[in-house]
Amino acid sequence: MDITWSNFKKQLPVVCQAIAEADFLAIDGEFSGISDGPSFTTLTNSLDTPEERYEKLKAHSMEFLLFQFGLCTFKYDDVKAKYIIKSFNFYIFPRPFNRNSPDKKFVCQSSSIDFLANQGFDFNKVFRDGIPYLNQEEERLLRDQQEEKRYHTNGASTTCYMYISPDASRAPVVPVIPDDQKDFIDKIVYQRKLIYQTMNWKFPRGTHVETVESPNNERRMIITKVDEDERKNKEIQKKVKEQEDLNNAVGFSRVIQAISSSSKLVVGHNMMLDIMHTIHQFYCQLPNDLEEFKSLTNCVFPRVLDTKLMASTQPFKAIISHTVLAELEKRLQMPPFNPPKVESAEGFPSYDTAVGQLHEAGYDAYITGLCFITMADYLGSFLSPPQTHVSVQSDVISPFFNKLFLMRITDIPYLNLDGPDCK
Amino acid sequence: MDITWSNFKKQLPVVCQAIAEADFLAIDGEFSGISDGPSFTTLTNSLDTPEERYEKLKAHSMEFLLFQFGLCTFKYDDVKAKYIIKSFNFYIFPRPFNRNSPDKKFVCQSSSIDFLANQGFDFNKVFRDGIPYLNQEEERLLRDQQEEKRYHTNGASTTCYMYISPDASRAPVVPVIPDDQKDFIDKIVYQRKLIYQTMNWKFPRGTHVETVESPNNERRMIITKVDEDERKNKEIQKKVKEQEDLNNAVGFSRVIQAISSSSKLVVGHNMMLDIMHTIHQFYCQLPNDLEEFKSLTNCVFPRVLDTKLMASTQPFKAIISHTVLAELEKRLQMPPFNPPKVESAEGFPSYDTAVGQLHEAGYDAYITGLCFITMADYLGSFLSPPQTHVSVQSDVISPFFNKLFLMRITDIPYLNLDGPDCK
Repeated sequence: MDITWSNFKKQLPVVCQAIAEADFLAIDGEFSGISDGPSFTTLTNSLDTPEERYEKLKAHSMEFLLFQFGLCTFKYDDVKAKYIIKSFNFYIFPRPFNRNSPDKKFVCQSSSIDFLANQGFDFNKVFRDGIPYLNQEEERLLRDQQEEKRYHTNGASTTCYMYISPDASRAPVVPVIPDDQKDFIDKIVYQRKLIYQTMNWKFPRGTHVETVESPNNERRMIITKVDEDERKNKEIQKKVKEQEDLNNAVGFSRVIQAISSSSKLVVGHNMMLDIMHTIHQFYCQLPNDLEEFKSLTNCVFPRVLDTKLMASTQPFKAIISHTVLAELEKRLQMPPFNPPKVESAEGFPSYDTAVGQLHEAGYDAYITGLCFITMADYLGSFLSPPQTHVSVQSDVISPFFNKLFLMRITDIPYLNLDGPDCK
Repeated sequence: MDITWSNFKKQLPVVCQAIAEADFLAIDGEFSGISDGPSFTTLTNSLDTPEERYEKLKAHSMEFLLFQFGLCTFKYDDVKAKYIIKSFNFYIFPRPFNRNSPDKKFVCQSSSIDFLANQGFDFNKVFRDGIPYLNQEEERLLRDQQEEKRYHTNGASTTCYMYISPDASRAPVVPVIPDDQKDFIDKIVYQRKLIYQTMNWKFPRGTHVETVESPNNERRMIITKVDEDERKNKEIQKKVKEQEDLNNAVGFSRVIQAISSSSKLVVGHNMMLDIMHTIHQFYCQLPNDLEEFKSLTNCVFPRVLDTKLMASTQPFKAIISHTVLAELEKRLQMPPFNPPKVESAEGFPSYDTAVGQLHEAGYDAYITGLCFITMADYLGSFLSPPQTHVSVQSDVISPFFNKLFLMRITDIPYLNLDGPDCK
């Protein structure tokens, strides 16, 4: 299911429910580029230590935009003996939501854009109708601004309410006023003060002040004569509106927050960059230190599993020669593996693996989930008695938790999110 | 007329003819952003010297992509007593044309992208079907590579032809070979040499060698037994193909080269950034020094006219209060101005100024041309005898040549491309 800004608010409860009821989640991201400097070979040098790899990806890969996020939720149905899936394809764009919102910049790499264009990627959906987002710092800042504004405009003291402009919390845009403009500015400031004072004197019973912004960014002050009840009512309405604006601005980050707080197992394929981008874009600046990054990842995604790492580890390593997602998926349809039965939930379009829509993030997430189930079930066949369905709680899977595949590094088996790395 | 990569080769002669026959050209560019750091207010501070303004725009505005270029050609028809116009809307994208091509990065600014998205800008046309380009340095490099390659594969000496790989001119991709890979590489190099030597010995009458690349970047060597005539024929075919590949890669830069070599008057509105981006993207890195930039601009566009500067100068300044393109165009439809009669050339879609398609580059170029004609004709009304049509050779226009509008700077009237600036 494609989710853009147009249907985001309507579909968010559907997404949250899918996450809440799932046994596990599969994710995948599409980015506007991979490396802003070094070649891909240099970025993923086979002699890198985990620290070096992390530092290079942080330095050269984070200026790109994660602009499509795939989420596929998997819930096992005991009666049907199959997984019921819900697949979502989110289009993401840092749309400026008002004139105070951060005007984000991001880099595009021609080869990556060209690659996605050849896959039929819909850039118009991203740029015209992408879902906005804020990281935690930006969300906190916006929340603080709103609260401070409310305190000033809606405080107990009438004096405070009357004399302080609703926008006092915002720093002036132009702190240095050129000499020839000083008289003009002084006059405006004086007139504004005069309006507030006159209001106070003429309408001692109370007024309501609000600043509205027109679509072309012109701002007007609307002053309404109100009694105490009306004033309270207007304030409540305003608070609801502000809360809604805030939620809208937080946008896609709410999906990541829902995934995070669910503590569900999150499965990805070669997911180091997916995790780094997700944290960088929707949570906070990445830390310089790899160990701090590991702690942060444990907070955001308490349990992850990388199917590329799984497929590169015994007993799979011996029987799987190519671990690129599309080839892995093909290989896992052949013996000794048994591809799992899955079914799209009602109202969700179903993917046909025979046709394939590779590199659409929702489809890649779906395929990743399939690969995970197939490999997990294969491990179940060695149990006594053998199990045809292995749950995500099974001990056979836990050795693969919280270990990330490190591309091209042959002598270090993985990045260990739960402790120090192998040397 | 929309020009993308799909119809570029077919339409290029049409574009070149339109340029060649025109009295003047109007241009406009759309960019993926304006400032990668400072706010727009800081970037265009009213106290900037011309040097400071140029340095700031160069430092903070050139990482963005000029991804739509509008060109409108105006040719006066004496019989019809009106201008015949041809309008082109080019979509531009640095598509990597082969595996050796530069993998360009560019920055997008959310507010600019959002602004264009709201205007209905078609990002898919840019990224899926944009016209590639090379700057002069890249073109020269590619040409040199091709010539060197041809010299080696097609040289007089058979020995040279036989022993040197067709790709010897390209630097090896991985200069440092890890110790554990050295044996493998040595073996491959030996085998390759063996193939060339055996060929020479088995087929002394001659062979033709070529390396072909499959769509998924796999490379194969194709060796064909040929006699001398066939070999020459194949070489000619190859040369034609290479020339075509080179022309394709140069892509949109050929349009700018055609504009440049025509020496026609180029009209733009607030065109400093248009000129800077055009030179930066299709010619060369911008020089650090403003005077060098002026010389360079004189080479690329020997004669330019900025309608924003014209409208901000007497006698227009006194009667035109807003010089933003859309408002200027409206103002110039009212007395004392007479909007000119124009007609789209046969086969070219006509623009309707009543509906407007502002911020499509082709339309903005068209409107810019209209504004120029209206203002020029107004100046003609002061001549004795008064002229209703003023040609681009007229003395009444020449005072406006080669002066660029400097946004928000009030005490310096313009950037003078023909000499030192006012202090």
